[in-house]
Amino acid sequence: MSLLTDLYELSMGAGYFKSKRQELATFDLFIGKFPKNRSYFVFAGLEQTLLFLKNMRFSVEQIDYLREQGFKEDYLNYLGSFKFSGDVWAVPEGTIVFPNEPLIRLTAPIIEAQLVESFLLNTINIQTMITTKASRVVRAACGRPVIEFGLRRTQGLDAGMKAARCSYIAGCDGTSNVLAGMKYGIPIFGTMAHSFVMFFDREIEAFRAFAETFPDKSLLLIDTFDDIAGAKTAAIVAKELEKTGHKLNAVRIDSGDLVETSQKVRKLLDGKELDYVKIFASGDLDEYKIEELLNKGAKIDAFGVGTRMSTSEDSPYIEVIYKLCEKMDKRGKFKPMMKLSKGKATLPGKKQVFRVKDKKGNFFKDIIALHNEDCQGEPLLNIVMEKGELVYNLPTLAEIRENALENLSRLPDRYRRLKQRRSYRVEISPLLKKMINELTGELKKIEFEALS
Amino acid sequence: MSLLTDLYELSMGAGYFKSKRQELATFDLFIGKFPKNRSYFVFAGLEQTLLFLKNMRFSVEQIDYLREQGFKEDYLNYLGSFKFSGDVWAVPEGTIVFPNEPLIRLTAPIIEAQLVESFLLNTINIQTMITTKASRVVRAACGRPVIEFGLRRTQGLDAGMKAARCSYIAGCDGTSNVLAGMKYGIPIFGTMAHSFVMFFDREIEAFRAFAETFPDKSLLLIDTFDDIAGAKTAAIVAKELEKTGHKLNAVRIDSGDLVETSQKVRKLLDGKELDYVKIFASGDLDEYKIEELLNKGAKIDAFGVGTRMSTSEDSPYIEVIYKLCEKMDKRGKFKPMMKLSKGKATLPGKKQVFRVKDKKGNFFKDIIALHNEDCQGEPLLNIVMEKGELVYNLPTLAEIRENALENLSRLPDRYRRLKQRRSYRVEISPLLKKMINELTGELKKIEFEALS
Repeated sequence: MSLLTDLYELSMGAGYFKSKRQELATFDLFIGKFPKNRSYFVFAGLEQTLLFLKNMRFSVEQIDYLREQGFKEDYLNYLGSFKFSGDVWAVPEGTIVFPNEPLIRLTAPIIEAQLVESFLLNTINIQTMITTKASRVVRAACGRPVIEFGLRRTQGLDAGMKAARCSYIAGCDGTSNVLAGMKYGIPIFGTMAHSFVMFFDREIEAFRAFAETFPDKSLLLIDTFDDIAGAKTAAIVAKELEKTGHKLNAVRIDSGDLVETSQKVRKLLDGKELDYVKIFASGDLDEYKIEELLNKGAKIDAFGVGTRMSTSEDSPYIEVIYKLCEKMDKRGKFKPMMKLSKGKATLPGKKQVFRVKDKKGNFFKDIIALHNEDCQGEPLLNIVMEKGELVYNLPTLAEIRENALENLSRLPDRYRRLKQRRSYRVEISPLLKKMINELTGELKKIEFEALS
Repeated sequence: MSLLTDLYELSMGAGYFKSKRQELATFDLFIGKFPKNRSYFVFAGLEQTLLFLKNMRFSVEQIDYLREQGFKEDYLNYLGSFKFSGDVWAVPEGTIVFPNEPLIRLTAPIIEAQLVESFLLNTINIQTMITTKASRVVRAACGRPVIEFGLRRTQGLDAGMKAARCSYIAGCDGTSNVLAGMKYGIPIFGTMAHSFVMFFDREIEAFRAFAETFPDKSLLLIDTFDDIAGAKTAAIVAKELEKTGHKLNAVRIDSGDLVETSQKVRKLLDGKELDYVKIFASGDLDEYKIEELLNKGAKIDAFGVGTRMSTSEDSPYIEVIYKLCEKMDKRGKFKPMMKLSKGKATLPGKKQVFRVKDKKGNFFKDIIALHNEDCQGEPLLNIVMEKGELVYNLPTLAEIRENALENLSRLPDRYRRLKQRRSYRVEISPLLKKMINELTGELKKIEFEALS
């Protein structure tokens, strides 16, 4: 996967190599502008980032390919023995984060810091995006279970795996993705498709076949032909199951007006003393639709949510950014750096993020400060890698999930609304402000000198 | 990857297995409703589909995991020796397709047909979606080269690979993704990042270092501090290159008002007899922005397009659907099937798509017909797999690209506009219509009988 990088990383590497520039540099990974309807993000993807950094090597075959692309032999030799040797600070997975806050801070020889950029951006982008989206869906479901159903329409297979992992972190109860279940230890759930019902000569035969195979965990899809007729058929099978000492778990509705249908089906089931049979809904759902369904009085006990959640449909990417914030000068001293491009200015220096809580322990404000600055609040960035070695016990997925849910519960409600972005208070510390002001003047001066 | 499937496929498989149902079934893969601003799709992803079908097996480790999930031993034995044995018909990659047209038609024992569903939907969804999106970007660029720059923000790593493959099929000239270059043989392109410029003490030192490393293919990023000042610096380096017998390839602008900046930079370069130096633009581009830039007179020679193209930002999924359309009955005869759910009705029977062209060879209309129906036009579905064996010479990526570009040139202009969806004429053949009418009545009758 080491070649999963943009060519310009390797080209710049060649430029640095030829110029004998191997000084240390520090890069920040952060989220720039927040999209519509997002007031927070839940950080995820650190585990994959660290495993990548730890294991990144170039194979002989890859070096041969780069040779064909015109890279020079001495540089290829360097790549052949490449091993990431940098220091990495990061916020834990499950941390709530806001614009411009460094989420990963990496200090390494400039070529190394550059070569890892594309992978880091890619995996933090998708994982943070999906975890955040799923946290919104879980909230909209108001305590009802949500199962991730996205595999068939995620953007590729890696996205299918990450959607399962990240939605679980965000509080979903499981996934339909079997490989994700196996790899990550996430509970897996499944029901039946319309084709299963159609394949049998009559709907009731399909229901019976399924109930016989899974007598204690059957979930019958009732809308293949007509949902109310299907519910009646499911009720017959539920009564048959009762006679053999089992219970039908749920019926599933996947189409039509879910409010009206769920109410009718609930009434029908209750009328037959099947109040224990749950109603499971799916079909083009997301946080907006779930909120609407529940506001309108839908009688739904659990949700299967796929495509829109697992592609983050209303915001299918995040402005994750990776920027140089300091470099070592020739005397071995770090010099803060910033970029002035219109609308793309960055924060200089080695930084830390401090989180200030109110008396109840809820989030009150954050302060972006210089790394060693004396600041109120709890520092969010921890050292996770030192000289290329992991110095961090990777938490289990269950621990990450717990951390995310605890953090989400500490975020005041006004930032958790589904619509309308609200800006959480993120301050710039006095020393960081001073550094920015000094650098802004200095940089402009340097450039004008170059042109005079 | 065989476990990259939704649990319900395996659960239904268990239901079929227990009921001893192994009859053949035919499934269609097609696109349902088209999203806003899409009047056509360019089909892609067949190669990965066929390689998956050919190689799908369950490992011992996977079987063990399924055992833990409660699946029974006889079914696990069946899965342990699983090999796909079906027949597959498909349209070639690069084919222009419309709503409800079968793109892949698969006939196999019902369990096999079901188990492959999730993978097929996943890979056809992303590849068809990105190829289509990229074809729009390429069109908007009006002949100017487009390079795919999406890796850092694609939804995961598989998406990064598929974005490179598919945008190339659609007419992009290359990608920044080095691994995709190596795996698919796509030309790779790269420039420099702002960090490279910032890392040197002065902008001109960075430009010189890069030009020295790549004297014949340097592309200098000029907007780190100030784009016009950067252009002047690039011009100095271009003149230095001229003295050593080389030529600066291009300058790149990545921020600000690209219309105004490109015009000013063009004028500046031309004034210094550097009219051969191209202007390359990037930064949040997509087909809509490119069209607008060119309409406003931007002086841009080539585009780097990333995030929005490679996530299909304005439509991040397609309604790809996989539906049962016939099953074998107990006497070994195929019986057509259809689904009546509200808004989700499907077309029954084994079908073929016929494409009718006008006298100039441009696309005029399509007809969805029964497989053996006598119909005007060219049949689009070809047999690609027979009894699980590939009977199709996989075309090279270059051939697929050529096919896509040829097909796109045959699609009348009104369907290629960026905005406003227009419905291409897709007819249902007389025999298929007749089958639908017969089945609609019959199905309703069966269900009401079941309830009486």
